[in-house]
Amino acid sequence: MSIRVTIWNEYVHEKSRPEAAALYPCGIHAFLRDVLKSEEIEVTTATLEEPEQGLPDAVLENTDVLIWWGHVKHQLVADELVEKIEKRVHEGMGMIFLHSAHKSKPFCRIIGTTGNLTWGREQRCVLWNLMPTHPIAKGVPAHFELREELYSEPFFVPKPDDLIFCTWYEDGNLFRGGMTYTRGLGKIFYFHPGHEICNSYYDKNVQQVLKNAVAWCAPTRYEGFDISKCHKQTEPIL
Amino acid sequence: MSIRVTIWNEYVHEKSRPEAAALYPCGIHAFLRDVLKSEEIEVTTATLEEPEQGLPDAVLENTDVLIWWGHVKHQLVADELVEKIEKRVHEGMGMIFLHSAHKSKPFCRIIGTTGNLTWGREQRCVLWNLMPTHPIAKGVPAHFELREELYSEPFFVPKPDDLIFCTWYEDGNLFRGGMTYTRGLGKIFYFHPGHEICNSYYDKNVQQVLKNAVAWCAPTRYEGFDISKCHKQTEPIL
Amino acid sequence: MSIRVTIWNEYVHEKSRPEAAALYPCGIHAFLRDVLKSEEIEVTTATLEEPEQGLPDAVLENTDVLIWWGHVKHQLVADELVEKIEKRVHEGMGMIFLHSAHKSKPFCRIIGTTGNLTWGREQRCVLWNLMPTHPIAKGVPAHFELREELYSEPFFVPKPDDLIFCTWYEDGNLFRGGMTYTRGLGKIFYFHPGHEICNSYYDKNVQQVLKNAVAWCAPTRYEGFDISKCHKQTEPIL
Amino acid sequence: MSIRVTIWNEYVHEKSRPEAAALYPCGIHAFLRDVLKSEEIEVTTATLEEPEQGLPDAVLENTDVLIWWGHVKHQLVADELVEKIEKRVHEGMGMIFLHSAHKSKPFCRIIGTTGNLTWGREQRCVLWNLMPTHPIAKGVPAHFELREELYSEPFFVPKPDDLIFCTWYEDGNLFRGGMTYTRGLGKIFYFHPGHEICNSYYDKNVQQVLKNAVAWCAPTRYEGFDISKCHKQTEPIL
Repeated sequence: MSIRVTIWNEYVHEKSRPEAAALYPCGIHAFLRDVLKSEEIEVTTATLEEPEQGLPDAVLENTDVLIWWGHVKHQLVADELVEKIEKRVHEGMGMIFLHSAHKSKPFCRIIGTTGNLTWGREQRCVLWNLMPTHPIAKGVPAHFELREELYSEPFFVPKPDDLIFCTWYEDGNLFRGGMTYTRGLGKIFYFHPGHEICNSYYDKNVQQVLKNAVAWCAPTRYEGFDISKCHKQTEPIL
Repeated sequence: MSIRVTIWNEYVHEKSRPEAAALYPCGIHAFLRDVLKSEEIEVTTATLEEPEQGLPDAVLENTDVLIWWGHVKHQLVADELVEKIEKRVHEGMGMIFLHSAHKSKPFCRIIGTTGNLTWGREQRCVLWNLMPTHPIAKGVPAHFELREELYSEPFFVPKPDDLIFCTWYEDGNLFRGGMTYTRGLGKIFYFHPGHEICNSYYDKNVQQVLKNAVAWCAPTRYEGFDISKCHKQTEPIL
Repeated sequence: MSIRVTIWNEYVHEKSRPEAAALYPCGIHAFLRDVLKSEEIEVTTATLEEPEQGLPDAVLENTDVLIWWGHVKHQLVADELVEKIEKRVHEGMGMIFLHSAHKSKPFCRIIGTTGNLTWGREQRCVLWNLMPTHPIAKGVPAHFELREELYSEPFFVPKPDDLIFCTWYEDGNLFRGGMTYTRGLGKIFYFHPGHEICNSYYDKNVQQVLKNAVAWCAPTRYEGFDISKCHKQTEPIL
Repeated sequence: MSIRVTIWNEYVHEKSRPEAAALYPCGIHAFLRDVLKSEEIEVTTATLEEPEQGLPDAVLENTDVLIWWGHVKHQLVADELVEKIEKRVHEGMGMIFLHSAHKSKPFCRIIGTTGNLTWGREQRCVLWNLMPTHPIAKGVPAHFELREELYSEPFFVPKPDDLIFCTWYEDGNLFRGGMTYTRGLGKIFYFHPGHEICNSYYDKNVQQVLKNAVAWCAPTRYEGFDISKCHKQTEPIL
């Protein structure tokens, strides 16, 4: 059975900044759809301007892995939608937060963080693969280079389950840029590349990481876990 | 300099259930105050019925470690107060959640969880010390016994930084009942004993854990971390 | 391509204790071979009494996942063999240690532990699934029951990467009985069931865990990691 | 009661390389002794050339925290001594491994690693403080600069309990250079600064980290844990 991915994008820069439009003429969501879709992965896209901000219940309930790209319109995302997304993650929906989604409402709410960090100019950076044994790092070399917006420590996030990638920047900074979390039954991956005027999503290593992450975040079927009744009184089991 | 602890209690059962009143005639908050106060620890108490739900800004801003006991009145705690508490934790205030606080608004919001678990009748339980090297376990034996309300897995919380205590129950259940988390600069400890009609807070091992936890949760002075400006643009550091 | 599993067994009890012989007439290794072999898993067995203690270089170098069962003959395992096994794990071979292998030479050497624990009589026990999102827990219910030899905390092992199962015992004890580690590029799983006179390997949940563990421990192909040259001097990469 | 620290140094470079002799005329051990000794910390030094390689039983048994600096003479350290050190760590002795001790016999044996990494020329580096809440990071700024020998990922060590410092290098590399582990009851800290011809031990941040690490690694008194009898049969505890 294929994994049902929904890619959500606020879809602003690609219509307003020429450099972004040149790279992603139909939007980052459409570009990533073409990268990810395969026999194993079925992709739907959604944007902020669509009805119900792109995520009506019928879409959310039929999503295995939700990918999130947002930047300047974080505050427009409805609190009710954030709550629904959080509920779905607790039930097992996987979630991949890209780039500036570190400061999105769903990220901060689900992870439990301000998402605060330090940022700076675009520059050369090197992503170091610290955990080659992790499924998300499969086929990814020990290090590879990108040109990206600087994201730097201190990054005020909880200790991750696994720190997979840490990124070096020309300016003397580094950033924990590829990390996993679990919340409820949902598996979550944060990955920093994807500034709207950088071409990171064209990079084959970035694409490999995203494909690996979709497979890793996909929910297991939890036999014997009755999630809809997970807060309950019990009788002696012996 | 002493650690400034504030103990917050919803303070309902001790006025309505005779068994609770017999154990804690002035409230769990008052009892714990007497347990904790010392040359190193200065204690204030606060209850739900007090003005501003016991935690006006002046109190919250002068609290190093906030201890939370709540059960049947979780929903009455104001969302604005929860936000202020979360902000203080991110700035470095320590927090200890006791017993049914696993389902309190501050716990669920700060940790990022539903707090869902399974519960049952009071019974014999054995707390196992899985991490004798942790400061919170200092002086605590390999195992000790209590009579407590059953709290059982599945407990839908994020992977803790450290799992210090895991509790065995007569009925065949077990529970990760002593765990640490970090959120922002705040250190957090969850500890399950403290059902209102059980005498766990009289137990010397429980008291030792609480004293240790206050010392461990107390904020370090973070020189060189400008918390008030922690989300900011930067210039090259080299 | 199928996963090449080698099951190593000291193979003593099944020839000397009638209760063990009744359960596992051809040895635990042969029984587990029949449990595990499938289109995806190819199984070889090896025992202590065979030439080169069952693990000549040609076998070890063609093993993706090594399963180890030992108890009373730990000290007979050659130090040279232990070194070869450790080297293979560092290169990426997965390893599953069963039951009393917690005190085997390869476990203690590879993990970095004395393997010390407390043990006791056979009794009812309940395995609790603390990490339903982990691939090793796939399809395993929230809890299931076995009859097993008591293994109890304190268990002096390093903090695991993931604590998947924790076991409750009738006598009041508990035990971290299903845990993962990474050493070098090798993924390792310890799982406590399998006392020679208990029928745990007939249990469908135990069998499911073992199949899951083989799949999880199997080495990834590490492109871009030149393991044979992993301690080396480097030139500037930029 | 003060913490009893023993600083062990192979003491070779300071007698053979003029640059090292200029920085540390009486040896790195003597220099660090002067840095660390205080009312709370009592320091003894030991070197490879001394009788029993500087660590007779009487010294080892009266050491709370052992600091280790070695580089070109790793292979001369006696296997029997390594075993004794490992035993002491399991009993609770803390241990701090500095710089090239990542490839020393005690580090590899106790941690369970090859210690393999990539190295290169001396250069500017920036140490980033990823865990300001950890006692070892107390008083250390978000980042500080040194000139050091390049140590780079991939570093084939087990996942640390806590990753406190990660270091950026001019050449495009990074390195997990400040990490904690627990083995048995012993707390362990690895810290990369300290190349013999660099002046890192003169740096006030490095000195602060070392003082913090000594305090953190010091053994707790484990009441109720009978370490000398930690592998034993038990009777029902209820």
